[in-house]
Amino acid sequence: MARTDDGRVETRARDDDGQAAVRVAVLGCGNVGGALVALLLADADAIAARSGVRLELVGVAVGDPSRPRSGVPPELITGDAKGLVNDPRVDVVVELIGGVEPARGLVEEALAAGKSVVTANKELLAAHGTALAETAATAGVDLLYEAAVAGAIPLIRPLRESLAGERIRRVMGIVNGTTNYILTMMSEAGVSYAQALAEAQRLGYAERDPSADVDGHDAASKAAILAALAFRCDVVADDVPREGIATVDPVDIAFADRLGYVVKLLAVIERTGGSEGLAGVGGAAPAGGGAGDDGVPEISVRVHPAMLPRTHPLAAVRGAFNAVFVEGENAGELMLYGQGAGGRPTASAVLGDLIDAAHHRRTGAPARFVSRVRPTFRPTDDLRCAWYLNIDVADRPGVLAAVAQLFGDNGVSIRSMEQVGLGDEARLIFLTHVAREGDVQRTLSGLRRLDVVDHVGGVLRVMGDEEEA
Amino acid sequence: MARTDDGRVETRARDDDGQAAVRVAVLGCGNVGGALVALLLADADAIAARSGVRLELVGVAVGDPSRPRSGVPPELITGDAKGLVNDPRVDVVVELIGGVEPARGLVEEALAAGKSVVTANKELLAAHGTALAETAATAGVDLLYEAAVAGAIPLIRPLRESLAGERIRRVMGIVNGTTNYILTMMSEAGVSYAQALAEAQRLGYAERDPSADVDGHDAASKAAILAALAFRCDVVADDVPREGIATVDPVDIAFADRLGYVVKLLAVIERTGGSEGLAGVGGAAPAGGGAGDDGVPEISVRVHPAMLPRTHPLAAVRGAFNAVFVEGENAGELMLYGQGAGGRPTASAVLGDLIDAAHHRRTGAPARFVSRVRPTFRPTDDLRCAWYLNIDVADRPGVLAAVAQLFGDNGVSIRSMEQVGLGDEARLIFLTHVAREGDVQRTLSGLRRLDVVDHVGGVLRVMGDEEEA
Repeated sequence: MARTDDGRVETRARDDDGQAAVRVAVLGCGNVGGALVALLLADADAIAARSGVRLELVGVAVGDPSRPRSGVPPELITGDAKGLVNDPRVDVVVELIGGVEPARGLVEEALAAGKSVVTANKELLAAHGTALAETAATAGVDLLYEAAVAGAIPLIRPLRESLAGERIRRVMGIVNGTTNYILTMMSEAGVSYAQALAEAQRLGYAERDPSADVDGHDAASKAAILAALAFRCDVVADDVPREGIATVDPVDIAFADRLGYVVKLLAVIERTGGSEGLAGVGGAAPAGGGAGDDGVPEISVRVHPAMLPRTHPLAAVRGAFNAVFVEGENAGELMLYGQGAGGRPTASAVLGDLIDAAHHRRTGAPARFVSRVRPTFRPTDDLRCAWYLNIDVADRPGVLAAVAQLFGDNGVSIRSMEQVGLGDEARLIFLTHVAREGDVQRTLSGLRRLDVVDHVGGVLRVMGDEEEA
Repeated sequence: MARTDDGRVETRARDDDGQAAVRVAVLGCGNVGGALVALLLADADAIAARSGVRLELVGVAVGDPSRPRSGVPPELITGDAKGLVNDPRVDVVVELIGGVEPARGLVEEALAAGKSVVTANKELLAAHGTALAETAATAGVDLLYEAAVAGAIPLIRPLRESLAGERIRRVMGIVNGTTNYILTMMSEAGVSYAQALAEAQRLGYAERDPSADVDGHDAASKAAILAALAFRCDVVADDVPREGIATVDPVDIAFADRLGYVVKLLAVIERTGGSEGLAGVGGAAPAGGGAGDDGVPEISVRVHPAMLPRTHPLAAVRGAFNAVFVEGENAGELMLYGQGAGGRPTASAVLGDLIDAAHHRRTGAPARFVSRVRPTFRPTDDLRCAWYLNIDVADRPGVLAAVAQLFGDNGVSIRSMEQVGLGDEARLIFLTHVAREGDVQRTLSGLRRLDVVDHVGGVLRVMGDEEEA
């Protein structure tokens, strides 16, 4: 690769067509940044042959420039990220610092200076994505972020382009590899949450402080980004109610298995408003209702564990893999599957975006931007799905009748019940028909107050089965 | 939707930004065409709101214009496809006629006239894709064909763009819903090929003459299109060796199940050349070897039934669904899954392309074209994978030794063997280690000549398991 060692503009490399190389600055040189820099340095010729654009790395901004980086020429390393962003040689900035600040300031500065930005930063996008997209559109440059959700899986581009005309009903994603690894271990090896977490930490799949993953924060950021794309609206991470996996009990995973289900942590994004909604609106329709595409969409965005039928395509997603299942009105069911994290897979997604940005730079036509409105969120109580409930009761006559009465009084219809003896107690495993969440929560409160109920154990939503049809 | 009923150019509809609508001609009004026309007529406002472009249907060319089409205004219908293509009002032509002629002439004419073309025509692309892509590039317009392979699944765009910089090692696809439905029935209901085919015909999944599907012709066209994209080279359907599913025996599906495998009809596209190849080159390296990205790639493209481990993501693809599994050097394993056929799913893919073409028309920047070289194809004898063999032999001493000797003499190493008694006979079920196909074929010829061998039954390639690593 020809490189502008002296930094003068006129020495810029040219590709086979004689077109000037597109010059790239990389901010951050951790796992992903290191893999990307290695690709740009070692594979520039092959990338140019495959893609038709020559990418030239002109600088890498790092926190500690005195630390040597193996394989990276020292003259490319700088501690001055702001200076690199504003270097007139730089055409495209790749932001791989992570977190909101200083990443936001640097990205804003790059966009305002007419430089396209490629980022893998989900926190930044889930907090300020709409404002940044508007800055990019105003400047006529790209803000691309295929790598921010589900690593190497082509997901952002299909949602933004392939499905641009599609009325999307729902997106359900396994978008966090750590929690999927833990749940897969619990399911397949029968170990406890604590044991599976310890193993995930040992293998480097989980951080020492695992809360960003296991409490659903990471998945909530990705859910906000997916909702913004799928429904062309402005959703931030703080809009997303979340439940993590720390309370998932191996007992419930085993019962789920017996019933033909697996337990997964899902990011769920669905259109709920108006007659187009997937779920029928029950007696207690939310105020405001839902509008069509020209108005304000009513949606639900959330993260929680759920039971999926074993035949559902997402059920087969094991270990640290990610997958996103999309239900469209015309396209039907789609699933996109792959490695959701890791240096090289994520760098591969960044590279695809870089090539896009480079092409757009040549043609003067950045990726499309469709303006985003603030949606209405359906109140959680008005969401509808089937439920799994695990309840320990005293094993004596009349108990089942009292429990069943409570379900009926709250408008929750029972689909199946199994009783398992436990000494003086009995364990009741219920699957309900599709019910309003508010009604289920009232039922649970009532159950907790019943004398004959000793303990309300696992409570899980059931998604993706024929009950929803 | 505003419509130019009188056909005058100046009455063209405008979208919310005041930009002129993009005017669309549809050639063919069958299953897919009918669904697309219905979408364009009923949903133009919603599509404009979602995508930012207004699409205006200006004509539909059909074989018999006297036949009324429900929901289509008669003034839009014409029997003169050539006249419609050349109508100066038309900006983009959607070709849904199918087959090579007259589709090819009409597409050439549209491209040469500076009109972008969207097509779902796999036969046309698998025969003349490179020439048509060059015509489009010369004219500075789009030739888009997301709908030609695997219906609604976003596949062409991810391969062309998201993975533009990725060194793809292999693509394995279930790209024919008819054969996947038949194999799923045989596997899950234990029925014969003939019974499953009859059921598929009854349900409309298979044609009365099913040969295009069951003999692998349809999959071979799609394999050629995928190979051209994945490896940026010129591959036509006639380059693709194929084996169909008519000889797949339920007995072998049952043995595969016992061994932990499922049987699928796969389109396989792999890079075989040089040190980058997935499979190691055996003693008999092909003449010419394989070149890097700057030279002529050596590849293999083929269609055949194969055994996949039950844990492989493609193994979970049931019924008429399609999926394509991509192995990239950096991206790792990816899978794209969805409905591979049907009017509305395919129309949804066409719509995504139409919106792309409309955006590109506005910006003056068509989709990228990377020139395609003619690849070298690795000779079939030099391909390497593991094999399943089902052999009936006489049940007497020394037979197994004779059979095993033959494997060894031909350099085929046995990984596992199971013997099942059958009266005076025994059935031997072999799995081999990875072996050269030529060596396996020599072994099979030798087995057929052995006195003690009564019958060589099922012979299946084994793909996607740890043996390949």
